[in-house]
Amino acid sequence: MTQIYAFGLGTTTTSSTGAMLDCFFPAPFKTPGTALADAIVSQFPAGSGEVTAETIQTFAEASTDGPTRQALLALCESDRNLCAVRLDRDEAIDSTAAAYLKLHLLSHRLALPNSQNLDNIFARLPNVAWTSDGPLAVDELPRALLSARVKGKNLQVFSVDKFPRMTNYVVPGGVRIADASRIRLGAYLGDGTTVMHEGFINFNAGAIGPNMVEGRISQGVILGAHSDLGGSSSTMGTLSGGGAITISIGENCLVGANAGTGIPLGDRCTIEAGLYITAGTPIMVIDEQGAEVGQVKGRELAGASDMLFIRNGATGRIECRTNRKAIALNEQLHAHN
Amino acid sequence: MTQIYAFGLGTTTTSSTGAMLDCFFPAPFKTPGTALADAIVSQFPAGSGEVTAETIQTFAEASTDGPTRQALLALCESDRNLCAVRLDRDEAIDSTAAAYLKLHLLSHRLALPNSQNLDNIFARLPNVAWTSDGPLAVDELPRALLSARVKGKNLQVFSVDKFPRMTNYVVPGGVRIADASRIRLGAYLGDGTTVMHEGFINFNAGAIGPNMVEGRISQGVILGAHSDLGGSSSTMGTLSGGGAITISIGENCLVGANAGTGIPLGDRCTIEAGLYITAGTPIMVIDEQGAEVGQVKGRELAGASDMLFIRNGATGRIECRTNRKAIALNEQLHAHN
Amino acid sequence: MTQIYAFGLGTTTTSSTGAMLDCFFPAPFKTPGTALADAIVSQFPAGSGEVTAETIQTFAEASTDGPTRQALLALCESDRNLCAVRLDRDEAIDSTAAAYLKLHLLSHRLALPNSQNLDNIFARLPNVAWTSDGPLAVDELPRALLSARVKGKNLQVFSVDKFPRMTNYVVPGGVRIADASRIRLGAYLGDGTTVMHEGFINFNAGAIGPNMVEGRISQGVILGAHSDLGGSSSTMGTLSGGGAITISIGENCLVGANAGTGIPLGDRCTIEAGLYITAGTPIMVIDEQGAEVGQVKGRELAGASDMLFIRNGATGRIECRTNRKAIALNEQLHAHN
Repeated sequence: MTQIYAFGLGTTTTSSTGAMLDCFFPAPFKTPGTALADAIVSQFPAGSGEVTAETIQTFAEASTDGPTRQALLALCESDRNLCAVRLDRDEAIDSTAAAYLKLHLLSHRLALPNSQNLDNIFARLPNVAWTSDGPLAVDELPRALLSARVKGKNLQVFSVDKFPRMTNYVVPGGVRIADASRIRLGAYLGDGTTVMHEGFINFNAGAIGPNMVEGRISQGVILGAHSDLGGSSSTMGTLSGGGAITISIGENCLVGANAGTGIPLGDRCTIEAGLYITAGTPIMVIDEQGAEVGQVKGRELAGASDMLFIRNGATGRIECRTNRKAIALNEQLHAHN
Repeated sequence: MTQIYAFGLGTTTTSSTGAMLDCFFPAPFKTPGTALADAIVSQFPAGSGEVTAETIQTFAEASTDGPTRQALLALCESDRNLCAVRLDRDEAIDSTAAAYLKLHLLSHRLALPNSQNLDNIFARLPNVAWTSDGPLAVDELPRALLSARVKGKNLQVFSVDKFPRMTNYVVPGGVRIADASRIRLGAYLGDGTTVMHEGFINFNAGAIGPNMVEGRISQGVILGAHSDLGGSSSTMGTLSGGGAITISIGENCLVGANAGTGIPLGDRCTIEAGLYITAGTPIMVIDEQGAEVGQVKGRELAGASDMLFIRNGATGRIECRTNRKAIALNEQLHAHN
Repeated sequence: MTQIYAFGLGTTTTSSTGAMLDCFFPAPFKTPGTALADAIVSQFPAGSGEVTAETIQTFAEASTDGPTRQALLALCESDRNLCAVRLDRDEAIDSTAAAYLKLHLLSHRLALPNSQNLDNIFARLPNVAWTSDGPLAVDELPRALLSARVKGKNLQVFSVDKFPRMTNYVVPGGVRIADASRIRLGAYLGDGTTVMHEGFINFNAGAIGPNMVEGRISQGVILGAHSDLGGSSSTMGTLSGGGAITISIGENCLVGANAGTGIPLGDRCTIEAGLYITAGTPIMVIDEQGAEVGQVKGRELAGASDMLFIRNGATGRIECRTNRKAIALNEQLHAHN
């Protein structure tokens, strides 16, 4: 019984020296069924490489899924470089094409953030100038800028980065994205996700949907259903001091405007506008009667639900108000230690 | 005596199935004078619909305003879909074209934020992919992305949203806008408004001018003359917890960088950098002698002038320092309750 | 011995009435050596003006630097307006072309921020609409928007500003820029600088490199090597309350997400996420034993090294924790007073 992790047929852009700059997979496959996997394995070698339009056409005509068939048939008409990527297992990334395929799986909602092996992705993705003329090799950019000027043309350089914007590759259904420059390919946007102008979603990060995202979802962070990130709110990435803890935010949470968290939150949590909670923050826990249960570090509250975080305006003390009794809170805190 | 609320002649973009995606009105009219209103009513039916170039030309040639006449005559030369929208009263929005006309009135400075009935605007505006090839229906985007790739073309998707960027429709005089992706059509930018890269202005929101806007002006918020919003400062929208209170900021105010407000401010108010004031925040009011007048909730200070908000670095207490005496402050606070 | 400050050969864009909108210098010169300076002075008058392709070609062919020669020869092939700018001394800016040359020097890493006389730069730079058709005069924009619509063309207006985005003119080596709309021409990005989507760098400001920039580098601010600005962190510009103090940040510093500083920092300083330090903030200084050394204003700590700033979660007090003893701290604070 043939099993493979992922498969993609697409177009690639290359530099003038033939280096691969990006790949576009209109209909990527994740863990295809046995019949499909057999067909893939029989026609395409493992790994990534060039492929002819004829090979894609043969494969497309055998496809039983309408939209996939349609997309692949359209692909055949291209005079661009065509490529196939067959990943038998979910291993560390060993090519630019494999990196792009895994990023597509995320944005096509075929893989959740943190569900794939993305080791080496930075090493395998070239730094590219993303321009109004498409992807350009960074070292060919000065000449391209000059050449455009000399001809009286306007070359817009939108970004110089290893990751392109998602929307030039795929826009999943049921989303709004106010400023597409802030969503990297590899972001996961569930149905019903609205990302406002101040929102940001990195690769391998996302929102389950429905969500209102006006803050920043760092690499590795997942936002649960019906949770909102207020304007310019922050979820701490591992790079920025979050350390080994991967941040996630549960369902029905609200992180206020200009607030932030360096600890994962469970469900129904609120952080008031302007307050930043970190793993090392001393926090006074208060029960549903308003009684002080005791002071803990932020990390001891990691993942708990039904918490309201504020900084008391009268005392400056950071408080975690809960809707539970002191005795239950004590048990929970004890369990976390 | 004929009176109508608004009138617009423009071009529309439609999807391949004929659905309206956007409208562009180069010279919209708000509450035109009697003679003009008579001419409109005699030539155009109420509501929105298609119109011929000949009809526009006849109307344009009767126009006594030079720039309007010029704009409408240019419009006639279009081979695009032309439309007319005649709104006799300012009622709930009942068409995409009517929504676009009201958004144009705001950005053309013909209507102030919160002065129009915008009910149903979200329902009447389609979600559109705003691309380098112009507006595209969201469900036609996957094919368009693939088709562009196959031809070796580059299709940039700038945004997937119900609201387009303002600058592709109108740039009022005397403004600077560092990053146009952050100003929605329907924003009101008064003369002398500078919006820096971190600034944002939603539809039905704006700055009276002159202003320096480096923060976010949420839907419904108005910034008074000579007031500055510091970098990434926040004005709380009704969605984000501001509730029923509509935020406004008076004249000569400064909201510091990374600060925010969930209450309206009068004139000459300052919020120090990094401090977020909400309606529920306990605040110690201090008079001009430095004497404590008493602790109030943020909402009790809503709309007052001459306030300086800080969080005391020594005690963590939020303080509102004023240049008035305790007795006057007491009276004012009492009046607000 | 001939000495000149700077020299540039480039293309210019002009409005329909001949007003200069921008200049592009592919290979600007800063304080050229004597032989080169002699060649410049003998062939080009001081100040800025038009120049023929032949003059540039003669100059290019005498060039001994390969890339410069190549760039200037390419320039000759242009049918655009060509210009030369020769600045004998670093004086106040007296032309648009001179302003553009000095901005190019910064972004080409030929001049550090705060090293040039930029007086009058705002007066000499016109406000320009930066569009997908290139730079347009602001007063010609309404007609251009209408004309594009009438033809069924799409005119994107990216920005209406005195400063264009840097990447349309030069992208120095070894950098990543996630969102190019947030880097103005005149920004200095050292080798190894990564600017994430939330990062921003103004003109005459920059990062020495290597750096991770996810916050805002205001005009005049320099970020030292190996220092990171967290997401949406703020460096206070002179406009926003920083007053006469020019902010700089030394090496190996970390300004946390949503944090900010209104005082310059030395080396190895950290400001915790969400905390904003200003010149007037009262701060308790704590020595390496945890003993309180005394309370100072932020400005008294300006430029010091090895400081960790936090707002104590239990007391709301802002603290500066150091790795030095009380006695040394006392001396240092005394020296600053």
